[in-house]
This record gives sequence, structure tokens and C-alpha cells, in this order.
Amino acid sequence: MIVPEPCLRRLPWYLAYASLTRAKGERSLSSTQIARGVGVDASVVAKDLSYVAVTGRTRVGYEIDQLVGSLEDFLGFSVIHKAFLFGVGKLGGALLQDGGLERFGLDIAAGFDSKYELSGTSIHRTPIHHISRFKELQELMHVEIGVLTVPVDVAQSTAELLVEHGIKAIWNFTPVRIQVPDNVVVQNTSIYAHLALMYNRMG
Amino acid sequence: MIVPEPCLRRLPWYLAYASLTRAKGERSLSSTQIARGVGVDASVVAKDLSYVAVTGRTRVGYEIDQLVGSLEDFLGFSVIHKAFLFGVGKLGGALLQDGGLERFGLDIAAGFDSKYELSGTSIHRTPIHHISRFKELQELMHVEIGVLTVPVDVAQSTAELLVEHGIKAIWNFTPVRIQVPDNVVVQNTSIYAHLALMYNRMG
Repeated sequence: MIVPEPCLRRLPWYLAYASLTRAKGERSLSSTQIARGVGVDASVVAKDLSYVAVTGRTRVGYEIDQLVGSLEDFLGFSVIHKAFLFGVGKLGGALLQDGGLERFGLDIAAGFDSKYELSGTSIHRTPIHHISRFKELQELMHVEIGVLTVPVDVAQSTAELLVEHGIKAIWNFTPVRIQVPDNVVVQNTSIYAHLALMYNRMG
Repeated sequence: MIVPEPCLRRLPWYLAYASLTRAKGERSLSSTQIARGVGVDASVVAKDLSYVAVTGRTRVGYEIDQLVGSLEDFLGFSVIHKAFLFGVGKLGGALLQDGGLERFGLDIAAGFDSKYELSGTSIHRTPIHHISRFKELQELMHVEIGVLTVPVDVAQSTAELLVEHGIKAIWNFTPVRIQVPDNVVVQNTSIYAHLALMYNRMG
């Protein structure tokens, strides 16, 4: 199901809010409470949650455990998605350190880098290989997600290598607009672009 | 000047492309070349660049040094913005490690954490203080940007502390929708929300 992007951007807020509320010992949560908690119109919350297979009850609202579970399922956080990471520099290394990604369904099975001195090392139990071994490991593992944290000058060529070997989705942390076939999903997470947005709105 | 968000999201692509092209030894670049390079309509590129104070010449296009400089100025990357970082966990620590932020105009002057054992340490020459010292240092430094990398359960209360002491913009890396007064800019960079978007579009 194709869910509107603004809705997909809000659902994680509801999940975070529901998880926090649960941690405080609450058992149920109404869409009005969620709306107040995250600062979004109650009608928007109700509409967003209508995409998620969860039903609330009048006056009681949603049962929190069920709401959290349904949101996690819907957002894809409760299924493990295997990924490879390309470019074990500062950012790539930090993502491998961050065990937090696994809680959100992303399991980085291996990292690749062109620096020979990194081959055979590991970060937080994730092995690092030379990029020349990607093809061989991909033939064994059929990973669908590539996390792209390479330097800008090799972003496009690395993206092409990934696509050539069957990667279906690229999580692009570089500021480069990579060009790939239409059937490949690209998720851009350029923190520098976000900085520019923030500076501009600070006026 | 308020620039439309989609335009602000594309300009960093043009900057990355222009920088790459310059690194290859080119001296000029046309909007048609940029359009092809980043996969955006030439008319969109021309319109976006009309916000930036840079003029191209017929048949020659933009002088690359000038284009790169103008884009960097426009995006706020060539001015230093002082910031404090709150929450020196894995992500916060990684952002302090990443000297790359300074090239984009962000100078994190100090990190704060509630863990006493981190006080007095430093990461990549950035000093880490106990959060209780924030008020005192802020009175001296009048920093405008707060980078929020705290755990979710203290995201809202920390945001309130920042606002109370004059922070004007919060770069929020937590998945929490923080609520702040209208005059405070919030830039959300929740990488988990991006994961959800990517999973959904993978179908």
C-alpha cells in the first residue's frame, strides 16, 4: 500500500509518543491525547491511524501495547531487513556503531570500503570487507538494501555497482543526487541539506 | 527570504554536482548540464538558481567557482553558526567526531550530557560538560543552535530547557515531535522516519 509521505513522516512521532506513554505505565491512549502530545490536529491523527490496522474504542482509545505493535509492524520496524553499508568513514562507522538501527528493523550484515587496511576488521561485530568482495557476498546473501556513506566523488559509481548486483533500495547519506533506474528506491538523508533548511528558516 | 522547501532541498544537489565537476578541472557549467547531472528538469534548475544571486552567461553557463561560492553563501555554509550539542551518546558522539559539519557552517562549541563521567572529557577537541553547566555557558556565549541527540524520554524537557535559555533553532535527531514556541525553528532529522519511508516504498 502506498501511504502518503506526510503520513509516513508523522506515524513515527505517534510511535515515539505511544512508547513514551507506555513507559510511564499507561495502558491506553486516545487519538486526542496523541494529537495533543505531538502537536498535530486530532483529525489528522485519526486519518493517519486509519492506514494502520489498529482499532480504538470509544472513550477508551487505543490499547497501548497493540498500538505500539501495530505501528512498528506498519512502519516495517518489526521485520529484519538485511543491508550492506558502503563507505566505512566517520558517518558509516557511526551507523555501524549505532546498535539502534536494529531496533528499527535494519540489520547491517557487512560494511565495505576501498581502504585495504579496513578489510578484516569489524565494528560492533559487523565485519568490514574490501569493496571488491561485494559481488561475491551479494551472490550468497541477496541483500536488498545498500546504505551509501561513501565520499561524494564515488557516490554515483558506487550506486551503479549496487544496482548492478541487485540492490533494490539505497539509503543515500551523501549530498549527491544519485541517478538509478526507476525500480530502485532511493531514500535521501543528507544532513547537510537539513542544515541549509534550518539556517534559511532562522532568517 | 523564504525559499520554498523543495528548492532548498535541491540546491545542495547542485552544489555537490558543481563541486564534483570543478574537482574534475571544469571551469564552467550550464543549467542544462546541472539538470542532466542531478536528474532534475532544466527549467526547475533555472528557477531554483534564480533565488541564488548568481548569473550565468548564454552559451557559457555559470563560472563554477562563482556558482559554488554563491550556493555556499546562499545555503549558509560559508558563515560559522555556533551550536551546542545535547546528549553525547552514540549519535551525538558521532556528530562531534564528524569534522565535516564545520565545512557546512556548523561549529559545535560544546557538548552537554547528564552523565557526570563525561564531564571534562572532549571529542575531537570539543569539550563535554555536565548539562547543569549549560545555563552558565549560554550566558557567556549566546549560542543560537541546539543539536538534540538525547534519549527520547528527555527530548521534550531538554528542548524546553534550550528554549528557556535563548536557543533559537533546534536540530532534532530524536524521533520525538518536540513542541516549542512558534518563533523557535525545529529541523527534524529522524533517520528512523526515513527508514520507514524507504521500507514502505520497497513494497
